[in-house]
Amino acid sequence: MSDASRFPAPIYKETVLAPLFEGVKRHHWNYLMRINYAHAVMLGERGILPADELAAVLGGLAAIVEDLDLERLTYTGEYEDFFFYVDAELRRRIGPDSAGKLHTGRSRNDIDHTVFKLALKDRVTAYLDALLGLIGGLLDVAERERATIVIAYTHGQPAQPTTFGHYLSALIEVLQRDARRLAQAGATLDRCSMGAAAITTSGFALDRERVAALLGFAEVQENSYGCIAACDYVTETYAALKVHFLNLGRFVQDLNMWTGFEVGHIHVPDGFVQISSIMPQKRNPVPVEHLRLLASLAGGRCDTVLNTMHNTPFTDMNDAEGEVQIAGYEAFDTGLRALRLMGAFMAAIRIDEDRVRRHIDESCVTITELAESLVRREAITSRQAHEIASHLARQVIAEHRTLATLPYESFAAAFHDVVGRAPAATAEEIRRFATPEHFIAVRTMLGGPAPAALAASLTRYRTRLAEDAAALRAYRKRMAEGEQRLREAVQRHQAPRSAA
Amino acid sequence: MSDASRFPAPIYKETVLAPLFEGVKRHHWNYLMRINYAHAVMLGERGILPADELAAVLGGLAAIVEDLDLERLTYTGEYEDFFFYVDAELRRRIGPDSAGKLHTGRSRNDIDHTVFKLALKDRVTAYLDALLGLIGGLLDVAERERATIVIAYTHGQPAQPTTFGHYLSALIEVLQRDARRLAQAGATLDRCSMGAAAITTSGFALDRERVAALLGFAEVQENSYGCIAACDYVTETYAALKVHFLNLGRFVQDLNMWTGFEVGHIHVPDGFVQISSIMPQKRNPVPVEHLRLLASLAGGRCDTVLNTMHNTPFTDMNDAEGEVQIAGYEAFDTGLRALRLMGAFMAAIRIDEDRVRRHIDESCVTITELAESLVRREAITSRQAHEIASHLARQVIAEHRTLATLPYESFAAAFHDVVGRAPAATAEEIRRFATPEHFIAVRTMLGGPAPAALAASLTRYRTRLAEDAAALRAYRKRMAEGEQRLREAVQRHQAPRSAA
Amino acid sequence: MSDASRFPAPIYKETVLAPLFEGVKRHHWNYLMRINYAHAVMLGERGILPADELAAVLGGLAAIVEDLDLERLTYTGEYEDFFFYVDAELRRRIGPDSAGKLHTGRSRNDIDHTVFKLALKDRVTAYLDALLGLIGGLLDVAERERATIVIAYTHGQPAQPTTFGHYLSALIEVLQRDARRLAQAGATLDRCSMGAAAITTSGFALDRERVAALLGFAEVQENSYGCIAACDYVTETYAALKVHFLNLGRFVQDLNMWTGFEVGHIHVPDGFVQISSIMPQKRNPVPVEHLRLLASLAGGRCDTVLNTMHNTPFTDMNDAEGEVQIAGYEAFDTGLRALRLMGAFMAAIRIDEDRVRRHIDESCVTITELAESLVRREAITSRQAHEIASHLARQVIAEHRTLATLPYESFAAAFHDVVGRAPAATAEEIRRFATPEHFIAVRTMLGGPAPAALAASLTRYRTRLAEDAAALRAYRKRMAEGEQRLREAVQRHQAPRSAA
Amino acid sequence: MSDASRFPAPIYKETVLAPLFEGVKRHHWNYLMRINYAHAVMLGERGILPADELAAVLGGLAAIVEDLDLERLTYTGEYEDFFFYVDAELRRRIGPDSAGKLHTGRSRNDIDHTVFKLALKDRVTAYLDALLGLIGGLLDVAERERATIVIAYTHGQPAQPTTFGHYLSALIEVLQRDARRLAQAGATLDRCSMGAAAITTSGFALDRERVAALLGFAEVQENSYGCIAACDYVTETYAALKVHFLNLGRFVQDLNMWTGFEVGHIHVPDGFVQISSIMPQKRNPVPVEHLRLLASLAGGRCDTVLNTMHNTPFTDMNDAEGEVQIAGYEAFDTGLRALRLMGAFMAAIRIDEDRVRRHIDESCVTITELAESLVRREAITSRQAHEIASHLARQVIAEHRTLATLPYESFAAAFHDVVGRAPAATAEEIRRFATPEHFIAVRTMLGGPAPAALAASLTRYRTRLAEDAAALRAYRKRMAEGEQRLREAVQRHQAPRSAA
Repeated sequence: MSDASRFPAPIYKETVLAPLFEGVKRHHWNYLMRINYAHAVMLGERGILPADELAAVLGGLAAIVEDLDLERLTYTGEYEDFFFYVDAELRRRIGPDSAGKLHTGRSRNDIDHTVFKLALKDRVTAYLDALLGLIGGLLDVAERERATIVIAYTHGQPAQPTTFGHYLSALIEVLQRDARRLAQAGATLDRCSMGAAAITTSGFALDRERVAALLGFAEVQENSYGCIAACDYVTETYAALKVHFLNLGRFVQDLNMWTGFEVGHIHVPDGFVQISSIMPQKRNPVPVEHLRLLASLAGGRCDTVLNTMHNTPFTDMNDAEGEVQIAGYEAFDTGLRALRLMGAFMAAIRIDEDRVRRHIDESCVTITELAESLVRREAITSRQAHEIASHLARQVIAEHRTLATLPYESFAAAFHDVVGRAPAATAEEIRRFATPEHFIAVRTMLGGPAPAALAASLTRYRTRLAEDAAALRAYRKRMAEGEQRLREAVQRHQAPRSAA
Repeated sequence: MSDASRFPAPIYKETVLAPLFEGVKRHHWNYLMRINYAHAVMLGERGILPADELAAVLGGLAAIVEDLDLERLTYTGEYEDFFFYVDAELRRRIGPDSAGKLHTGRSRNDIDHTVFKLALKDRVTAYLDALLGLIGGLLDVAERERATIVIAYTHGQPAQPTTFGHYLSALIEVLQRDARRLAQAGATLDRCSMGAAAITTSGFALDRERVAALLGFAEVQENSYGCIAACDYVTETYAALKVHFLNLGRFVQDLNMWTGFEVGHIHVPDGFVQISSIMPQKRNPVPVEHLRLLASLAGGRCDTVLNTMHNTPFTDMNDAEGEVQIAGYEAFDTGLRALRLMGAFMAAIRIDEDRVRRHIDESCVTITELAESLVRREAITSRQAHEIASHLARQVIAEHRTLATLPYESFAAAFHDVVGRAPAATAEEIRRFATPEHFIAVRTMLGGPAPAALAASLTRYRTRLAEDAAALRAYRKRMAEGEQRLREAVQRHQAPRSAA
Repeated sequence: MSDASRFPAPIYKETVLAPLFEGVKRHHWNYLMRINYAHAVMLGERGILPADELAAVLGGLAAIVEDLDLERLTYTGEYEDFFFYVDAELRRRIGPDSAGKLHTGRSRNDIDHTVFKLALKDRVTAYLDALLGLIGGLLDVAERERATIVIAYTHGQPAQPTTFGHYLSALIEVLQRDARRLAQAGATLDRCSMGAAAITTSGFALDRERVAALLGFAEVQENSYGCIAACDYVTETYAALKVHFLNLGRFVQDLNMWTGFEVGHIHVPDGFVQISSIMPQKRNPVPVEHLRLLASLAGGRCDTVLNTMHNTPFTDMNDAEGEVQIAGYEAFDTGLRALRLMGAFMAAIRIDEDRVRRHIDESCVTITELAESLVRREAITSRQAHEIASHLARQVIAEHRTLATLPYESFAAAFHDVVGRAPAATAEEIRRFATPEHFIAVRTMLGGPAPAALAASLTRYRTRLAEDAAALRAYRKRMAEGEQRLREAVQRHQAPRSAA
Repeated sequence: MSDASRFPAPIYKETVLAPLFEGVKRHHWNYLMRINYAHAVMLGERGILPADELAAVLGGLAAIVEDLDLERLTYTGEYEDFFFYVDAELRRRIGPDSAGKLHTGRSRNDIDHTVFKLALKDRVTAYLDALLGLIGGLLDVAERERATIVIAYTHGQPAQPTTFGHYLSALIEVLQRDARRLAQAGATLDRCSMGAAAITTSGFALDRERVAALLGFAEVQENSYGCIAACDYVTETYAALKVHFLNLGRFVQDLNMWTGFEVGHIHVPDGFVQISSIMPQKRNPVPVEHLRLLASLAGGRCDTVLNTMHNTPFTDMNDAEGEVQIAGYEAFDTGLRALRLMGAFMAAIRIDEDRVRRHIDESCVTITELAESLVRREAITSRQAHEIASHLARQVIAEHRTLATLPYESFAAAFHDVVGRAPAATAEEIRRFATPEHFIAVRTMLGGPAPAALAASLTRYRTRLAEDAAALRAYRKRMAEGEQRLREAVQRHQAPRSAA
């Protein structure tokens, strides 16, 4: 069967090729050119491309970049895609034979996945940078608020006092694990696909390590079929992000409750509060809602990429290519907005300490420690202590007072009823046992909120942050060294004019 | 606690308000203006807005639209959002008192959801239009190919012959159900939220039905809290789309197999085939892969909207607002590309009948009907018939021949072995029993592939298509009538200049 | 290539066939038997199965059911699956020729999908029954609490007073739409696949309508390929459920806030509160959290079924068969637990009216109506009214008092400052304007909370509930009539013993 | 407000508590007991529990385990949950005072998350064990089939020859990355929550490291709030699994194509093929479909857990507790079935070499190497080589022959036409250039299919497998050492009777 139609059919051009071309213009063309340079240099060093042809290729590529006017470059269908556009431009400038040699031992398959990895490396490092920045900012807040008392909730109800620094430390730990997961995804991304060619490498004596080094990759991805068909570098990245966005969203739900009118433990400064002129008392802390939806959208975009891979043949590759990759970048963009908004928001808010104090009194959340302190002070059983405490709690509720203002006599009477003797603890001791400060001070264990314990934790998080930042710098240094190496090699080989 | 910051904080402006403003410029501003007109007209008709003030408001709105330069309008933060931008422009033009009256009995809450419904109605109707167009195109192909024999598969293996028209009819039925589901979502969208105001309606004697009619809605959405908090009009829409994209994707996987080199039952014309110059035999039917990934991406975008709603408080509404709505529109856009590509592709492909015929022979897929025809022709039991058929199949495989070329003697011998007598069927009959034409011809039941049965089915699908198209036209007519009604009312009330 | 292995390999038996067999035992065997009866009856009526053989088949089937000991029946691999187990049992009892005729014009393909539809119809109707029950219960609560004042929230902040009945009406409307979506899925399920046989129907003159009627289906699903390959009857069902679970979960998040210690607008009776003996003041309303996670899990299970269909070939059917269907049933089971728990919980809770009243005072949520009432009472502009109201609100906040206790003089002074004259409204009027009762009373519009408006709404919901219940009864009646019709036909044709 | 109801309300018992109790019986009770032992031992070592009371507690726990009859233990509601059941049993046996001391410095919060981590550690290690087993099995197959030629596909079309060993290596690399991701999740799981108590640790001088060591954890999870609220140990685990199931499913889609009738490159032995007696030629390789749906279901179950966490408050913990954890275990169970089935299937299948060879000839997939070999052999440009090759390919197609049988003269003529001279390559060389063996032999690069390159790769995978297996053994050793340490400590402290 033959026919008169010619590829690409107008509808295919319009619904697929033109959008792809625009995507390459926005996101990928510079990576493609970098790969062109690196591959040419390696071919030259291997003697596959003679020195003069190498110089011509490098010069041609430089001229193409120089002349490139992305604004005005629109898809015409004359060339199937950007790759062929560059090919045609190069042929036009240096002739088909030299231009053709640039294709030795490579194909759009290995090029594409190398482009995608380079693009994702840039995004993952930028995101990690912002995430470590957020963690650093939260650490600052946690240190500043290491002694600021807040109420810790379980099941949506006030449960125990702790400090805001201690609460934030829980979030910091989670985010540090998020950063580690993302860094691990970064390591998976750090393996170059070049040299795999269409599927199976080629018969030419290429130097895969050299191309990887020129592109700033840590190493070569080994199996050549995997280089062009495996997409777990994509899915691992978005799975790590998804886990992270779920974590963000859960924390936002706490912010949502804490900023509610009736709870009001967080004071949100006016810059983050939408107010109506007629209802000056109605303060909508709108960033909280937006943080939630940004985290949800970003997470949904991760899922979109992950699920697009579902049930695609391992060896059909378009499902992991341009359009899907670019759809994934939105997850990074949306996530970055959330990170930046959260960072500024967290730096700006303050705990409303009076209100917290009032709710601590109303909710009796120190009573468990009063009982436990009695166990230790009076050498009574915990059963006895709980019986006394329970009695006091009921009295406090019935009389609409607080533990702090309950007369010592009430305590002493309850104690005597249960234990059969007068308490050893003084009135001052009992009062202290019921304070949130005491509650916190005795929790000196690893991971607890007592000052020394928390300070030690914060020091460890600070250390880990420094380590993570150093690892990120090292990762980026390798990327930059690749670029530098490539720039120098191009200059060395390209006699007449400068490039890259 | 008080502070010197002013809303909006720069970071909130940058990460939330500016993107939202751009979204309104691209997608929503015209619906907002339409609502402004409709609400003003109703207020006028109810006497809440005196005639002269109504004329002023309508004139002011018209002037704002006239002067609007979307290209140059960028977000400055001077006004919180587009809504307040219009408000400020109106106040500037007609004074704060008249401008202020436009806000009587409404709020951004009911306005927003009405905007979103109008926007989704436009998208659902456009999508339905394209979908009915695709169904019509498939019906054309099914009619043209009503007798073109293909192989029907189960478990990835050739199973029975049928016709391409019969196969496509399965798809047509699925897509007609998709269209029905989407039309039902359209009915859910067709209820106006205006009048709910912030949450609970207002104390002014508004006419909710009138606003709904002026905006082309079928009816008013009743409970006012639901008007601004329920988001199932969104989730039903995207759930219906998601089901549809799953259906598209499954069909694409069939195309994927049918266009494979070794199967090759579909001839894809050159316009849809990516060919390499060096490998003219390698024909990549790339639209198939792209259809698959477009359907996957579109489905993922539906899920993103659906899951963003998950565990959001019913009465916190931002999670269903601007940013999320606009994220959903991408599902429509991506889906429309898929529909258009699929329509053109399906119209262009042809069945490779020789190849199908060869594979029918090789795969012996007519043998069950040979057996069943024997049951009817010879009045033997199906067990006997199957024994004969099974014997013949094994012989065909062992001798690398086809059922069609097996000598009558072989059949007669097998028959005698099993039944104990000579067959009544002639050689010609036996040959016919083994043809795909016979296989198809006897399947005359409702829903079967025999010519008359299929023709009756196709007629029914054609009828249903006409009904669906009529329903869509009626739905759009109501939308258009609303616009017309609004335009007339505006002209009537706005003395000096024309509007809308 | 040949080999000595025999199907099924032990590992296949263990990982696939045995679990499937257990699934059929738990969920499907009775539907399979019903189909056996119905198909046999139709074959008899069509003369394909002579009367005596029909009687034998029916008798054999009845004997198999009678002897069936599901507890002790374990998978041995002797028969591939339950279908073949029944086949073997029937052959053993009535001989292979008659038993074999039962297979005329059918296959496991059309049988399986018919089984799944019957199973889903039972689940959808049971779920609808429970859902309509919940709606009825909520209507009872809404009627009882039609005048109970609550605070309506937006953006997580108190916004306006309304009644609990009005709030619940929003939920009732959503759930009534959920019920409608589920009923529509029920209609899609109501088309019988029998007669499609393996793919293309058969050459025997079957009566598809008769089998459908005997099985209680509304109609025959037309295209035979679609009968065994289309799975949108599954995906529509779970997409409708998913939308519903999202709705449930959003409402639960409101409950979560309302039952929080500091909000406390809902009193949860002790039966639903987990209390610690030592902290009698800590009341964890644990059903709320469990409702949320049940809705999430149920929704996740819907997604599992939906996404399992993604990118499966249309004509490979196992992805929509036994194991996946049964995985879906968990969504129904989990959802039913949520419905029942929510029904009991909603009937048991009460609004804490004192607390609501106190928060209304503290949050000044009636102030917008005070302003709007002034507009109408004093014929001032809304700008003026808002200026006065805003002034009062600030004063109330500064002086830690409430609108209700603000002296009339303060109001009069503010009024004079803005309007330049004394107010016409009396002190009593102003006090009334600031009450939530007034706020609600003036919202008489369609869908508003004023008594008459709400009563009219509730009547309409009651009517719709009655309609939905009638539709469900009609649907179930058709199912029951099918069973009755089948029972009678079996008795008619099966001389010696009773069956079904 | 007070009421007469008592917790738990019957409906709560039935819909929540009873199912949870059954879940603990099936999955968690033994971990709970282990934690009881470990905590008691630590309390004893710290002097909080005197030696005699410690002995009593350990003895009481041992007696409870001994008397436990899980079959007959059904939920009555007498005790809220299993935790309280054990508490009551212990009080009954050793008195409330000693029993009460066991609760010192702990709560259901830290216990629950420690239980879940122990349960997940068991599941992750079991899964890793099976996964490494599968990888080992695939390595065996890859080594055996290192020289077996297959066709590599792109875009669903034959593209190049390679070896089955090389193809499988791509999968092996992916699965080794999956194993690494899962092992990293295992490291996140390996941090003990005990000591966090309800939220903030306690005032008693507990030894968190000791409890962690007795339970076989690598370390203590630091921040105590994070210990009971962070759920990323869950989400990381299921995100890693999800990525893995996507990888499995993609590979299964290749198997699906390769086992198709028309492709048929894989011979599936009879044990894995469902055959119909009447159609002996129809061989359904059903495990392939089941592998696909098992991977889909398992992946869906991962998503269910992940998405259940979405938008839950960080400090509401039930969403990550019992019911959700147990829902996740199904993902492991389903995945294990897939792993086992795939392992057996991959070991059993064989490449149909004749058929592969025939399709290589028909699809001309060696032609690119013919061209590239000419470039190197004849020192012509690749453009010239491609022109020649393209000419030959067209001729081969037109004449329905193969590259192998094309006369040397045809080649020589084409060569002369393009290059203007006679070729230097002999007829034998040209014939060799067109063979798949030559194609593979020259691809000697890192990651290529040439024998030495592949052998080196396989050696590296074998080494990595050994490392991964060693790491798993080390992880399990630490778990076992914890159990042993606990057993010894219990024996040491429990005078009269043995325990654990």
